[in-house]
Amino acid sequence: MADKQTLSYEQTGVSIDANDEMVGRISRSLKSTHGPRAIGLENGFAGLFRLDYDEKLFKKNYRHPVLVACTDGVGTKILIAQQAGRFGTLGIDLVAMSVNDMIVQGAEPLFFLDYLAINKLEPAKIAEMVESIAAGCRMADCALIGGETAEMPDIYGRDEYDLAGFAVGVVERDRIITGKDVRPGDVVLGLASSGIHSNGYSLVRHICFKKEKLAIDATFKELGDATMGEVLLEPTRIYVRPVIRLLGGYKRKKVVHAMAHITGGGLVGNIPRVLPSDCDAVLKPSSWKTPPIFDFLQRRGPVDKAEMYRVFNMGIGFVLVVAEDFADAIQDKLTRYGETVYRIGSVVSGTGKVLLK
Amino acid sequence: MADKQTLSYEQTGVSIDANDEMVGRISRSLKSTHGPRAIGLENGFAGLFRLDYDEKLFKKNYRHPVLVACTDGVGTKILIAQQAGRFGTLGIDLVAMSVNDMIVQGAEPLFFLDYLAINKLEPAKIAEMVESIAAGCRMADCALIGGETAEMPDIYGRDEYDLAGFAVGVVERDRIITGKDVRPGDVVLGLASSGIHSNGYSLVRHICFKKEKLAIDATFKELGDATMGEVLLEPTRIYVRPVIRLLGGYKRKKVVHAMAHITGGGLVGNIPRVLPSDCDAVLKPSSWKTPPIFDFLQRRGPVDKAEMYRVFNMGIGFVLVVAEDFADAIQDKLTRYGETVYRIGSVVSGTGKVLLK
Repeated sequence: MADKQTLSYEQTGVSIDANDEMVGRISRSLKSTHGPRAIGLENGFAGLFRLDYDEKLFKKNYRHPVLVACTDGVGTKILIAQQAGRFGTLGIDLVAMSVNDMIVQGAEPLFFLDYLAINKLEPAKIAEMVESIAAGCRMADCALIGGETAEMPDIYGRDEYDLAGFAVGVVERDRIITGKDVRPGDVVLGLASSGIHSNGYSLVRHICFKKEKLAIDATFKELGDATMGEVLLEPTRIYVRPVIRLLGGYKRKKVVHAMAHITGGGLVGNIPRVLPSDCDAVLKPSSWKTPPIFDFLQRRGPVDKAEMYRVFNMGIGFVLVVAEDFADAIQDKLTRYGETVYRIGSVVSGTGKVLLK
Repeated sequence: MADKQTLSYEQTGVSIDANDEMVGRISRSLKSTHGPRAIGLENGFAGLFRLDYDEKLFKKNYRHPVLVACTDGVGTKILIAQQAGRFGTLGIDLVAMSVNDMIVQGAEPLFFLDYLAINKLEPAKIAEMVESIAAGCRMADCALIGGETAEMPDIYGRDEYDLAGFAVGVVERDRIITGKDVRPGDVVLGLASSGIHSNGYSLVRHICFKKEKLAIDATFKELGDATMGEVLLEPTRIYVRPVIRLLGGYKRKKVVHAMAHITGGGLVGNIPRVLPSDCDAVLKPSSWKTPPIFDFLQRRGPVDKAEMYRVFNMGIGFVLVVAEDFADAIQDKLTRYGETVYRIGSVVSGTGKVLLK
């Protein structure tokens, strides 16, 4: 549209046409996550999601619905994906970080939006990323109803980008789980993580690539057949289905007293967020299996053991604090739903801390 | 916690304690935006917002509520703020970008979350940014119920950061405005922008700083007393109150047939998103006052006139396509609500385009 002598937006590095091309590809990924409640609008300015407000099932489940919203990014795990040239799983991490936070409150995810900021729109790469976000949304039973892709060559360097995600869910007001019912004697159950998940990657990168200068495709006997890149990019486990199914089985009894998503800060940083100030959680690390990548990182750092527990999940990605009488039944159910469940500790009188014994 | 010989997370550039300090300051800004529907949870994993589902007013207003969600960033306007060292207004831009998109559908904003990714946590700077987000939320009558601040020194260079925002609102299902009722004869009303708003800044920076090498604190007669930095950082106008108030006055009649938030792509790119494929909008640029900054940029580029209309709002930040018989009344109302309203054109039979006459 612009003359040769005049400046156009494309000359400054931002391509409006490449953006248009991509929108079509992204729209197919979005649709793969849509149930009957997502409302499609061609070229819409916003994503729309119908509450089942006027239907019997919604009225039965929600007398006083509360909306729950979370946002998170995937941190510098992005840089590992970049280094490995693999963009097909980061979207699962992105969804996991928000929806695992949301279910802590007892809420079921409804929908998700993403924000992707990037140096240059490369339609194939972006379509791969968005498809992985859609894959995460399908795993979490939530609809991907929108997103923004921003091309910002002056903020993001060549091949650089960042991802943020936003999830909205719903919970019945008097079923919100806050931790206020936690009491001495409660049992702490831990759900196995799939690996490092999405926190601690600045330290991971420092150890593996700055200090040890490992190759991204190196393999190590103690880590099995997978390459370094594969181990480090293992997607964050999404705990939505087992947790929502478990809560659905206890509609009247309040047997799950608190939950915590184990992110930055580890078990010692995240469990106190839901402990009453007069309770401690005593955890026994020998009661669960720590994936070999954590020993690997600790030795090569070397990293102090206490610091390891302050930065990483150490093998437990999600924690439930449950009434003692129901602990066995809950452990059985979660195991049947496909989780690896450990009885990792219990609650005692205290001051709101986590003690590792 | 770590020994001197071992690696701690802080040594890799990520400070967990600085994060804790800031959380307290941010929480005060959040609370300043909370009405009775926001539910505070100390250290919560998520933000909670109660629907007035069980109250008479909500039942009267929403028989079939649809949730509407938007996400956006502020683009490279961030770099101007950085250059000027002013972080107290970008949050208004961030809120504006999402809520102005949301009201296009006829939805009223309920709540907002932000994602802030940064090189290094500087509590004072971040508190200033979050307070400006809270200010934007107060202007848009929505609650800031959560956010994420991610310190990522390996993605964001010294003093670099990015901001993304996410808004959720609600609209009655049969009051969703889609543009399907637009017809020849409809009048196009334009609401004045406050300046460049939050799009086109890659081109702005190219012209002002790369090519012309202007100082950020330079002043120019044609731009009045304000410095370059002040003119370029003028916050995006938030159109929520006048538009929601206008729609509230026409609960039965459908007189507002379509709306558009004028962002990247300008009037010619955004109005077609809500035009039926058999209508054109004919706009008369001489009918409104274009702020002097646009002439300034066009001359100094130089930038082709058509390209200017493809990149910038050119003085019109929000457009309403309304029934001809109600155009005068709507213009009067919006003027009374504090907007500068121009009758900028009309709808004719066509093929879904915008024509500038």
